[in-house]
Amino acid sequence: MSELSRIGVAIDSDLLGKFDELIEKRGYTNRSEAFRDLIRDRLVHQDWESPDRQVVGTVTLVYDHHVRMLSEKLTDLQHDFHRSILSTLHVHLDHDNCLEVLVVRGKAAVVKKISDALISTKGVKHGQLTITTSGAGLA
Amino acid sequence: MSELSRIGVAIDSDLLGKFDELIEKRGYTNRSEAFRDLIRDRLVHQDWESPDRQVVGTVTLVYDHHVRMLSEKLTDLQHDFHRSILSTLHVHLDHDNCLEVLVVRGKAAVVKKISDALISTKGVKHGQLTITTSGAGLA
Amino acid sequence: MSELSRIGVAIDSDLLGKFDELIEKRGYTNRSEAFRDLIRDRLVHQDWESPDRQVVGTVTLVYDHHVRMLSEKLTDLQHDFHRSILSTLHVHLDHDNCLEVLVVRGKAAVVKKISDALISTKGVKHGQLTITTSGAGLA
Amino acid sequence: MSELSRIGVAIDSDLLGKFDELIEKRGYTNRSEAFRDLIRDRLVHQDWESPDRQVVGTVTLVYDHHVRMLSEKLTDLQHDFHRSILSTLHVHLDHDNCLEVLVVRGKAAVVKKISDALISTKGVKHGQLTITTSGAGLA
Repeated sequence: MSELSRIGVAIDSDLLGKFDELIEKRGYTNRSEAFRDLIRDRLVHQDWESPDRQVVGTVTLVYDHHVRMLSEKLTDLQHDFHRSILSTLHVHLDHDNCLEVLVVRGKAAVVKKISDALISTKGVKHGQLTITTSGAGLA
Repeated sequence: MSELSRIGVAIDSDLLGKFDELIEKRGYTNRSEAFRDLIRDRLVHQDWESPDRQVVGTVTLVYDHHVRMLSEKLTDLQHDFHRSILSTLHVHLDHDNCLEVLVVRGKAAVVKKISDALISTKGVKHGQLTITTSGAGLA
Repeated sequence: MSELSRIGVAIDSDLLGKFDELIEKRGYTNRSEAFRDLIRDRLVHQDWESPDRQVVGTVTLVYDHHVRMLSEKLTDLQHDFHRSILSTLHVHLDHDNCLEVLVVRGKAAVVKKISDALISTKGVKHGQLTITTSGAGLA
Repeated sequence: MSELSRIGVAIDSDLLGKFDELIEKRGYTNRSEAFRDLIRDRLVHQDWESPDRQVVGTVTLVYDHHVRMLSEKLTDLQHDFHRSILSTLHVHLDHDNCLEVLVVRGKAAVVKKISDALISTKGVKHGQLTITTSGAGLA
């Protein structure tokens, strides 16, 4: 962790008042932390725009495990990319529906490819790629 | 315009360096301005979450003016909501395609309804609602 | 315009019922049109992922025209890119606030650059790039 | 699972060709499945617009476990909402950084509140709420 800078930001008082209201509603107790979160979110999105940048993402899948051969297909696919898939969480939502979350690390383009392959599998009801960060270099 | 506040924000130096790079690439010459833009963008999005809040939006439509009765339908629809539609811009993109941008002001729910009605009209190739602000109270 | 294909789509009846409800609420009178809109929206987003693809977008700016030299700066910037900016609409929102919408055509990367330059200008309260299409080749 | 409907959709041949290209690139082997995914994604988003609707989401957090008391705070928060948090996955990304994914079920407004509380905690570098579905009633 590098040292801390303390910068001054000029903001119209009305605007600042509205921002303080907004972040209080979101649960922030500290204005600097809210600013840092705004910044980090922009940086994470920027990273994902470069296909070769190392990123971390999660893939969330909801599917009916009764669909014939679906679990097998999803498992096979995951093994094709086992080097990039760090871990998986499985939740039994009800008698039929499963939710699976995969944590995937790799180049942005590869993570997207893995996500596309899983989400497009027949029987997956809903799939979503969430972009986040390895945290490294993001103080 | 209310008076200016000058606040201090504590940021890890590495994080600040990355933010400065990002905003320079985006064309900012002033760090405070970049912070204010981040704040205002969040506030605008918050306004649109309340159906009764007064907002301003633009509706962008691309369509083929050769589609029978399409221009008439779009014009009729706009007249149904003439009190909310402040102004319209029309561009002839090529021999067939038109782009129209409408500036709409009203309650968030009404602006969305107008946008839905226009975008769902048969013959409209692409439609998009852009959320923005009246600027009032947003210093 | 090329000829019309008629394809069959297999959908679970419950899912279809929910889709029909959703599109009715949005104003669609025709299910095929709703499907085509879903498709076209995906294609437009795909185009914008390739920096060299020809696209059309609109840039929406809200600003206070009392800010010193702001109108001049925005006009200067626009003239730097006059070949790409097809047209502009200006609305006087209230005593202080202006809304300006620009229709911009060019390579995706250039349109983004123009948008960044305008939105980052000091005094612009809110700016938004809306991605759309020239309509060409999008039946 | 309800019975299957087979509906006809009229699409311009050029547009269909482009759609087929797009979905092939995404890994779909079946056009109906691509259509169903488009539909389901819209329905999931619609559910999340109603604060009282029962939904399922995942919250992804990246944080440095060296930050004093952070793990404790996150755990405390999670216990406040233990009825809604179905399961949690933890990955050690590197020496410093942890990634945690929580599967949360409840009313849309409650799931958002839990997500806000976790993401706004000081020391969380990046947080993201992913909206998905319980799968029930979504064939």
